[in-house]
Amino acid sequence: MIPQWIIEKKRDGLTLDDDEIRFMVDGFTRGSIPDYQMAALAMAICIRGMSPAETSVLTDAMMRSGERLDPSSFPGPTVDKHSTGGIGDKVMIILAPLVACCGVTVPSIAGRGLGITGGTLDKLESIPGYRTGLTTREFIAVVSACGCSIAGQTPSLVPADRKLYALRDVTGTVPSIPLICASIMSKKLAEGTAALVLDVKCGRGAFMKTRDQARALATALCEVGHRMRCPTTALITAMDQPLGRAVGNAVEVAECVEILEGRGPADLLEVTLALGAQMLVLGGIEPTGERALERLRPALASGQAFEKLKTMVRLQGGDPRALDEPARLPKASLSASLPAPRAGFIADVDAEKVGRACVALGAGRVRTDDTIDPAAGIIGLLKPGERVETDQPLCTLLAGSSTRLQEARRWMDNAFTVAEVPRPVGPLVLETLSAALPPSPATPGTRNPP
Amino acid sequence: MIPQWIIEKKRDGLTLDDDEIRFMVDGFTRGSIPDYQMAALAMAICIRGMSPAETSVLTDAMMRSGERLDPSSFPGPTVDKHSTGGIGDKVMIILAPLVACCGVTVPSIAGRGLGITGGTLDKLESIPGYRTGLTTREFIAVVSACGCSIAGQTPSLVPADRKLYALRDVTGTVPSIPLICASIMSKKLAEGTAALVLDVKCGRGAFMKTRDQARALATALCEVGHRMRCPTTALITAMDQPLGRAVGNAVEVAECVEILEGRGPADLLEVTLALGAQMLVLGGIEPTGERALERLRPALASGQAFEKLKTMVRLQGGDPRALDEPARLPKASLSASLPAPRAGFIADVDAEKVGRACVALGAGRVRTDDTIDPAAGIIGLLKPGERVETDQPLCTLLAGSSTRLQEARRWMDNAFTVAEVPRPVGPLVLETLSAALPPSPATPGTRNPP
Repeated sequence: MIPQWIIEKKRDGLTLDDDEIRFMVDGFTRGSIPDYQMAALAMAICIRGMSPAETSVLTDAMMRSGERLDPSSFPGPTVDKHSTGGIGDKVMIILAPLVACCGVTVPSIAGRGLGITGGTLDKLESIPGYRTGLTTREFIAVVSACGCSIAGQTPSLVPADRKLYALRDVTGTVPSIPLICASIMSKKLAEGTAALVLDVKCGRGAFMKTRDQARALATALCEVGHRMRCPTTALITAMDQPLGRAVGNAVEVAECVEILEGRGPADLLEVTLALGAQMLVLGGIEPTGERALERLRPALASGQAFEKLKTMVRLQGGDPRALDEPARLPKASLSASLPAPRAGFIADVDAEKVGRACVALGAGRVRTDDTIDPAAGIIGLLKPGERVETDQPLCTLLAGSSTRLQEARRWMDNAFTVAEVPRPVGPLVLETLSAALPPSPATPGTRNPP
Repeated sequence: MIPQWIIEKKRDGLTLDDDEIRFMVDGFTRGSIPDYQMAALAMAICIRGMSPAETSVLTDAMMRSGERLDPSSFPGPTVDKHSTGGIGDKVMIILAPLVACCGVTVPSIAGRGLGITGGTLDKLESIPGYRTGLTTREFIAVVSACGCSIAGQTPSLVPADRKLYALRDVTGTVPSIPLICASIMSKKLAEGTAALVLDVKCGRGAFMKTRDQARALATALCEVGHRMRCPTTALITAMDQPLGRAVGNAVEVAECVEILEGRGPADLLEVTLALGAQMLVLGGIEPTGERALERLRPALASGQAFEKLKTMVRLQGGDPRALDEPARLPKASLSASLPAPRAGFIADVDAEKVGRACVALGAGRVRTDDTIDPAAGIIGLLKPGERVETDQPLCTLLAGSSTRLQEARRWMDNAFTVAEVPRPVGPLVLETLSAALPPSPATPGTRNPP
């Protein structure tokens, strides 16, 4: 096969054959297809798109580029959750131990933050000693021992994605639904989950700004999941406001502890339970979402989920005492509160501005090789609908230097809108999508091990 | 400037700023923009297109990537001609000396053949001793001495084009009008011609298959020429049938000699005179095409143009005796004639099939690094409208091996259509395009030396 002929087909908007897609992915992974040919193909895909069948084959070819775990490696039904990323999205740290308490096994390969959206691995690494760089054997051992593990991608897992993502990042080919789909799904399918719940974030603080964009991505993800015989449900959730009252790394872990202790912000709890319910249904633990909620709530209230998180942290080398006593988490040397300019009701908190302020504080990355300050972030964010008096703090900024505090403050200047009368607060879970499994085994390749 | 932001703009169909285009071309030439970013940009340009203003800036940036000759380096008005390539297109070998006899100076940097279309340099190199690899100084000296030179691109001339063309060839980004335009025009403007006549070939044997495609390319080329203050006229000429009766290298040189001696095929003469008339008009030698023809015809009939070609050949190291006695040109060891299956009139000769047969004979290249057989080719091609008897040769194939003859024969099997009654033969020159010079100096950059 001639690479440029395949590139030309996609350039002209035609559909690629299965073996053409596999030839390009395999060659690119092995190095026989150079970066410049893959860059041209990625741009053609970005502009011309891919059919669901093509996207599934791309996902399958990428998944097969490295080591793959089989769901049978783990005890019990496996279900993972993936979020497309938002501001203050610490859900996974609560969700994984919570559903593990209810009989769902969660082998979760998570990511790092980039730009305004944070990453679960960065947050967990603020716990002293917590190791995200597990070997495959260690990962399986932790999952088998406590029912869940949240770790980083090993070098042998989906090398095609690592290579392609780095290339897309510098060639203007990131925002392509088929390429995003294949990147997410190839990693999730390779980690050995049998089913998947997706949290597709939608709004100012998310990658997908509009409902239509979010729906298109959610639909494409579900379609690939089902073609790959991985039952997939996607929730589209609002990401115009930050999730919870804390944004950063250590501060988000501390907020997870609040939820696991029966306190914490209502919006964070709501999204966590909505996703957890879908995981229990997909895992076959409960037949309906309502029944699933009846199982999730006591697991949380009893402190069982909190104990599970501490076990997972301990198994991954972390100090569980940092969860019992959040004062043991990294602490910022400087803080500054943002006073309300006038009394009224919080009408709006701009998640994007909060995210940019957090990057300025040092809690996020501009480039993949930036280091982050685990203690930096924002706490005590007032939520829409809440009453505020003049000069009362709208939130508190935490950082390691006054320069950072000042820069973040500029981003926060117009982040809050205070109105005279309370405005209605919209729903958090906007839509739930799932596709029925195809009637016959999917052609692009099922996930049985080779 | 961030390369991926520029790539993203073009990906989204936006117009690039002048300095963005220059930043990408300069960086790519110097090596600070890697191949993969240029490949992504080339694909985005291929699909999204470029405005005439963007194409002019791209041309200008590429032209400035290396050495440039100024029209004032040469005596008299300089006008060059460029053909987009066809089967049997040996026009330049007759045209350059012919118009040089009439007072037009022709500094012509020509190319090699690739695929089914031949290259003027390959044809000229079949003349024993002829050097196409002149230095800039030698090139200027030949032009100054005899009024014309046909040579190859020196390494210092438009290095951006050499690098970009090699990349486009392997990334499926060849058929893009702005990229083709910039490639052609940057070289022509750098070689120091003050005006340009273009022969945009249209039909089966050409890159542009339809009249609309040819017109789009011709329009874009004229527009760039005039924005760069290089008066440009484009002729769209038919390339469904091969031009002349000979296709190959040495055999085409021999056919040029026939024309220069007052014989030779009428279609080749017609296209040569049509292009020559435009060159004389653009060079300010004659006010109209009709008047120009009155000057061209005697220059040909008197043998003056033939003498000029021999002078040019001698100045470039070639043996002019090979033109007086074409038996001195390389001669193929094997030949085979193609008998007419029945009597009638030639209705059609498929230029594409003739071109493919010539590649099979060894007269053309599949890849840029293939070597060619200067003696191989096809001669004695009957022309549409001509009468043929059963078993009379339709043409004669020349090659160095019987395998090549056999392979070429398969391509020729259906190349000729013989009809019972003569069919009308269409015109050769289909359209003439030229754009008026813009009222004020073009913004993208005039060609005054830096």
